[in-house]
Amino acid sequence: MNRIISGGAPLEELIALMAKLPGLGPRSARRAALHLLKNREALMEPLAARLAAAVEAVQACEVCFNWDVGPVCSVCRADNRDRGLICVVEDVADLWALERAGAFSGLYHVLGGVLSALDGAGPEDLHVGELIARARDPGVREVVLALNATVDGATTAHYLADRLVACDVSVTSIARGVPVGGELDYLDDGTLSAALASRRSA
Amino acid sequence: MNRIISGGAPLEELIALMAKLPGLGPRSARRAALHLLKNREALMEPLAARLAAAVEAVQACEVCFNWDVGPVCSVCRADNRDRGLICVVEDVADLWALERAGAFSGLYHVLGGVLSALDGAGPEDLHVGELIARARDPGVREVVLALNATVDGATTAHYLADRLVACDVSVTSIARGVPVGGELDYLDDGTLSAALASRRSA
Repeated sequence: MNRIISGGAPLEELIALMAKLPGLGPRSARRAALHLLKNREALMEPLAARLAAAVEAVQACEVCFNWDVGPVCSVCRADNRDRGLICVVEDVADLWALERAGAFSGLYHVLGGVLSALDGAGPEDLHVGELIARARDPGVREVVLALNATVDGATTAHYLADRLVACDVSVTSIARGVPVGGELDYLDDGTLSAALASRRSA
Repeated sequence: MNRIISGGAPLEELIALMAKLPGLGPRSARRAALHLLKNREALMEPLAARLAAAVEAVQACEVCFNWDVGPVCSVCRADNRDRGLICVVEDVADLWALERAGAFSGLYHVLGGVLSALDGAGPEDLHVGELIARARDPGVREVVLALNATVDGATTAHYLADRLVACDVSVTSIARGVPVGGELDYLDDGTLSAALASRRSA
């Protein structure tokens, strides 16, 4: 990163760290830092306080590895959710996306990544053991695999399905097909093939 | 902003504040927050510390209104700069850009905006009075106007030139013309006209 300005070490260090956030580079980090300084009371001070609070309070849920306050997350603690259903996702962002959609009422399990030969990520790098342990609970009926529709996602789904055979649960996968609002003409061949293969009576 | 997730108030508040940064929206703020949580020791803790330090230490320079640590900024404090030369810029970002270019060795004056009929910004909203006071100093020979090449920038430059007539300084403006590396075919009419009008012997 370029030298920003001769002095002002705290500001330079702040900008250098902000530039490491996804979506921000050196230029936009500078812009964001100036925006913070201009809105000191409305934005900079609350952000500093919230960030410190989050560092202090937010931790990984010891059941499903979602991020939340306290040892067990609010989804796992909620008493109105179906505890016989576990949805396996790659990342907390995926969990949040499903929660925003509001279409799932069971519990989650965040793997923390996918198997990847390229990145050298094996089962021991993911929360696979914890998933198997949870699936062994007699109260669990079904494990829904909601991994991303990538090669690594599919590999991981196969691997998990294999491992889960030993547990007394049914293993399902979210459907692949035409997204809602999608136009056939703009979709890739893989999606069209998957949508055709999974066709059902109308 | 959408509900992120049922619990986790500190996290939701953090994301809501981060989404107010320029260049980040709700989606990228979520991504940035997850990135912070995944890189807690390398990024989140240092960022929280630096942000708190910046809130505490960084203030506007009482001479030129640059942001820095201490009452007078490092540019104004430096003893190797030409104190007879003051470059007027709209914003601290412009000051930083000129400093990165390393082409100016005088002092600066940050106006804090431009005159704008649309935004209702008059001279009293800018650091104009402070500029006039600085220009009255007998040690000051020249005031360089380095305002943005916008309508409001040009209006402000005219206004400042008028006000500075009363002070015993020469008032100059940075040149408008073809940017270095620029191709004529891609430049707008205004730039081409300005470049032609300011032509000089080769």
